[in-house]
Amino acid sequence: MLSLKATAAHDLAPARLLPHSRPRRLGRIAAIRFLTVASNAPLPHKRKVWDSAEEAVKGVKSGDILLSGGFGLSGIPETLLKAVSKRTDLKDIIAVSNNAGAGEKGLVRLIKAGQLKRLMISYLGGNKFLESEYLHGRVGLELVPQGTLCQRIMTHAAGIPAFLTPTGANTLVETGGIPIQFNEGGHASGVRVPGHPKETQIVDGRKYVVEPAIPGDVAFVHAWKADEVGNLVFRYASNNYNGAMARNAKLTIVEAEEIVPVGSLSPNAIHVPGIYVDRIVKATEPKAIEIVALAKDPKEQEKDVDPKAAALAASKDWRHRIARRAAREIHDGFYVNLGVGIPTLVPEHLDPSVKVWLESENGILGMGPYPTKEQVDPDTINAGKETTTLLPGASTFDSVESFNMIRGGHINVTVLGAMEVSQAGDIANFMIPGKLVKGIGGAMDLVSNPDKTKVIVTMQHCSKDGKPKLVKECSLPLTGARAVSLIVTDLAAFSVDRVAGELTLLDVAEGVTIDELRAKTGADFKVGDNVGTF
Amino acid sequence: MLSLKATAAHDLAPARLLPHSRPRRLGRIAAIRFLTVASNAPLPHKRKVWDSAEEAVKGVKSGDILLSGGFGLSGIPETLLKAVSKRTDLKDIIAVSNNAGAGEKGLVRLIKAGQLKRLMISYLGGNKFLESEYLHGRVGLELVPQGTLCQRIMTHAAGIPAFLTPTGANTLVETGGIPIQFNEGGHASGVRVPGHPKETQIVDGRKYVVEPAIPGDVAFVHAWKADEVGNLVFRYASNNYNGAMARNAKLTIVEAEEIVPVGSLSPNAIHVPGIYVDRIVKATEPKAIEIVALAKDPKEQEKDVDPKAAALAASKDWRHRIARRAAREIHDGFYVNLGVGIPTLVPEHLDPSVKVWLESENGILGMGPYPTKEQVDPDTINAGKETTTLLPGASTFDSVESFNMIRGGHINVTVLGAMEVSQAGDIANFMIPGKLVKGIGGAMDLVSNPDKTKVIVTMQHCSKDGKPKLVKECSLPLTGARAVSLIVTDLAAFSVDRVAGELTLLDVAEGVTIDELRAKTGADFKVGDNVGTF
Repeated sequence: MLSLKATAAHDLAPARLLPHSRPRRLGRIAAIRFLTVASNAPLPHKRKVWDSAEEAVKGVKSGDILLSGGFGLSGIPETLLKAVSKRTDLKDIIAVSNNAGAGEKGLVRLIKAGQLKRLMISYLGGNKFLESEYLHGRVGLELVPQGTLCQRIMTHAAGIPAFLTPTGANTLVETGGIPIQFNEGGHASGVRVPGHPKETQIVDGRKYVVEPAIPGDVAFVHAWKADEVGNLVFRYASNNYNGAMARNAKLTIVEAEEIVPVGSLSPNAIHVPGIYVDRIVKATEPKAIEIVALAKDPKEQEKDVDPKAAALAASKDWRHRIARRAAREIHDGFYVNLGVGIPTLVPEHLDPSVKVWLESENGILGMGPYPTKEQVDPDTINAGKETTTLLPGASTFDSVESFNMIRGGHINVTVLGAMEVSQAGDIANFMIPGKLVKGIGGAMDLVSNPDKTKVIVTMQHCSKDGKPKLVKECSLPLTGARAVSLIVTDLAAFSVDRVAGELTLLDVAEGVTIDELRAKTGADFKVGDNVGTF
Repeated sequence: MLSLKATAAHDLAPARLLPHSRPRRLGRIAAIRFLTVASNAPLPHKRKVWDSAEEAVKGVKSGDILLSGGFGLSGIPETLLKAVSKRTDLKDIIAVSNNAGAGEKGLVRLIKAGQLKRLMISYLGGNKFLESEYLHGRVGLELVPQGTLCQRIMTHAAGIPAFLTPTGANTLVETGGIPIQFNEGGHASGVRVPGHPKETQIVDGRKYVVEPAIPGDVAFVHAWKADEVGNLVFRYASNNYNGAMARNAKLTIVEAEEIVPVGSLSPNAIHVPGIYVDRIVKATEPKAIEIVALAKDPKEQEKDVDPKAAALAASKDWRHRIARRAAREIHDGFYVNLGVGIPTLVPEHLDPSVKVWLESENGILGMGPYPTKEQVDPDTINAGKETTTLLPGASTFDSVESFNMIRGGHINVTVLGAMEVSQAGDIANFMIPGKLVKGIGGAMDLVSNPDKTKVIVTMQHCSKDGKPKLVKECSLPLTGARAVSLIVTDLAAFSVDRVAGELTLLDVAEGVTIDELRAKTGADFKVGDNVGTF
C-alpha cells in the first residue's frame, strides 16, 4: 500500500513556463538565447515510499531472478530478506549475490524457507547450511569470480549483452568444471547440472572469456539515505554490490536507514539516481558484523615485551621472514592488494620511507588499521569480512569500480598465498584438493592482468606432508595461468619468466643451501648472479 | 618540477602497528579477533601536486592518444590544453573527446597548433575550423556514437578489450561508411582513410556491434576539487567524460579548481579515487559557456499578451499541435529524454496531473528551466550546450552512467525529430543529404533499445520541397532500424508495428482528410478504429 504521508515534496513550487523569443548571438563562444522552458513542475505525483517491507516485497514472484546487495553482512538488505522469507507461496527463486549470508542472516533465510532453486555467488565461505544443501543436491550453486559477477550485472543494466574478460581464462570457470547442482542422492550420486563451459576469444594474443550479462527481475538494495524520489547514497563499504543491483532489475526495492526529503541530497553526491528505484521502505533490522577485529587496547600494549625483543622474535619467525623479503618489492606510493595470511604481514616490514595504499576488493582504497572498540563500524569491513578503518585520503566505492580497478591493472602489486605455483607462473590457490570449493572470490580477478599488476606469491616452500609446492606443472585447478612474477617462500625467492616459463633464484633464506633447495623444489630453476640471503 | 609545498598530509600520525594475539569467537555472527594491523603510515612521500601546467604536460609525447574530458565547453581541461598547445615539438596526436571545442577554446587549440593527426569525437557541431581541416584532408575525424565512445574508454580502463552494443547496428557505424580522412586534395579528391567496418553478433535475435576498447596514453581532466593524493570530485554536469578518461590513461593529468588537503573530502563522495591520478595542477583558465540560454525576466513577462490569447495562438501553431499530441503519450512519473526542436515544446502540453523527469545525456536527471542571469552556471548545461538548472531531486553523473541509463532502456520515452521515418520504424535524423556529417552525438544510443524506451518522432509531414518524410524505405543513412513506435506530424499520428513493418493511423489533425493524408504519405498505412482528431 502506498504511503499517504505528506512530504516536503508537495511544497515545492512548479517551475515556470516562460514565453518564447528569438536567440541573440554574442561573439564566438557565448550566444545568448531566451527560450521557452523545457520543463514542468518538479515532482511526479507517483509515490515510491511504501509503508512496510511486507507490502513492498509482494512484487517478488516464484521463479524470479533476485539480486541481493551486500558483501558478507555489510550492506545486506536484511529487512527485505526477512520480510520475503515469510512468504510461503514463493519458490524456485534464483538468487544472485556475492555470498549467501552467515548464521541466520542474509540469503540463508530464503534457503531455509525453501524459496531458492539456485544461487549465483562468488564465495560460499563458512556457510555450513548452504554447503550441506548444495552437497545433498537440494540447491544449485553457481560460483562466479567476484569481478565477473558484478560486471555481468552492471553490463545487463547498461544494455550490453556480453563482454570479454581475462578473468577465469584457463580455469574451471572457462571449462565449466565446477558442478552447479548434484543429483538428489547427493554429490556421491553424480552431477545433475554441470557448470557452463564458456566461449573464449583471443585478442592481441591473449585469451579472454566471453561472459554473458545477468538480468534481474527484482533487486533488494540496502542504502544509507534515500530521498523520496529514489536517489540513493551508500555509506562507506556498504555500497559493494548494491549500486550495480539497484540498476539492473525490473523491480528495484530499496531499504534505507534514512528516508530524506527531496532536495536534501546533493546532486553531486548521489550514488544511484532515482530512475533506477521503484519502491523504498525504512530499514528496521539492525546491522550485523561478521567478524569484529579490534586493535589491541593501548594499555594492554604497554604490558607487551619490549619492541627490540619482539622484532628479534619476528625475525626468527619464517612467516615474517617471507613477508620481509616480499616487502622489498613494494615501493613508495604503490597501490597494493593483500591476500589473507602471510601477505597481511608485509606492511610491517616496509622501509619507513615507503608508504603505500591498501585496496580492499569490497570497495576501499586507503584501508587503515583495525578499529578500537569505539571505531567499530559495520559499514567499514575488509575483504575478509573483518572490521577495519579508513585512513585520511581513503575512498570507498562499489564492487564494479573495485574490480574495474583490479582487472584494469591499476593496482601495482598483489601479494597472495598459494597451494601450488608452476615454473611458468601458473597459480593454484582457490580450490583445496578433495574438498568442496569454498568459492572463488576475487582471486581470479587479482591475477587477471599480470603485465600491469605484479603478482607476488608468499607461501611455505613445501606442504605439511613435505611435498614441493613449487612445481613444473600445477596438479590443482588453476586460479590463473602465467600470472606470478615473484615467489617468496621460507627457503628462497625466485623470479618467474612468464613467457619462457623459467624460474631464476634471486635469494636464499639464511642457512639454506642450493642443494637443499633443489631437493625441495619440484621445478627447475636457474641460479641468478649474486644470489643474496634474507 | 614537483611541488615542495608542505601539506597537511605531513602532520598525519602513522597508524600504529599492533601486536598479535588469538581470535575469540562470539556466537554465530560476531567473532572477535585481535590481530596485527595490516597497515602503515597513511601517506606516500611521492607527490602528485605540480607547480605548473607547462611542467605537467611535458609528459605528453608525439603520437600519443590524448583523452580530453569535457562536453561542449563544460568541464574541458582548458588550462592543460592551453599549456600543451604551446609545445612546438608535439605532433601526430590522436585526440579523443566528445567534441573539439568552440571558437578558440578546447581541442581547437591543438588543431591550430598542428599537433593533431586525428580526432575521435561524437559531434563536430559548428566547429568551422575543424570542418574545413577535415574536408581539406589535413586532419582525420572518426565519428563515434556518444554512448559507444565513453563506453569504449571506460571498458579499456576496466581491462575489457571489447563489448557488444546495439548502438549503431544497421547504420554507417556498422558498415564503416563515414570516411575518417580525405586525400590531401580535399574531399573531392577521394578518401584516404575509410571508416572501420565493425563485426556484428546476433544475441537473442537482435544484432549487436562488437566495439573495441580505446586505450589512452595521456588523459587531461578538469576537476572541481582534488585532494593532494588525487581523489577527485566533479561539479554537476562538468563530470561528463572526465571520470572515464581519468581512469584510462598511462599518465592522468588533472587540473583542479581547488586543491584541498588530504582528509577534507568524504570517502563517500569521491568520483575518481586517487589511484587513477598521476599529476595535479591548479586550473587557472576561466570557465566558458557556449550558449547562455536565459529564462525571460518576469518584468518582461508581464508585458506579454494575456495567457488566453497566447494559448489560442499556440493551438494554431502546428509545432505546438504536434507537441500537444505527443504529450498524450507521456505519463506521470516518466523519465523522458527530449531532442532539440519540437520535442522541447512537449512538456508545456502535459496535463497538470502529469509530472516527469527530464534527462540530459551529458549527465543530468531532473533538468529544470533555463536559469535567471543570477543562476547561470557553466557546470550546469544541457545536451544542446545551453545553460540550464537542476530541480530539487536532480542528480548529476558522468557520461558512462548517462549512456548506461539510455542504452539500458531505463528512460521511458524519448521524443526526437527526424528527416525520414520508414513504415517499419527506421529513423534517419543524423545526416543531412549532400552535406557534411555534423556528428552522431547521442541519437543512435537513444534509439538503441526501443523495446524498453519508446521512441516518438515529431516532425513535419512533408519536407520543405513537399516530399513525404514518412516513407516505405528510408533513403537517408539510418540512425536506427525498427526503432520508432509512434510518429506525430502536423497532419496525423501513426503507431508503428516494428515487427510487421506496418503503420496504423491513430489521429488526424483538425481539417485533414484521409485522402489528403494518403496523397502526402510515402508509405502505406491502415486506418485504425475510431480515428480521433488533434
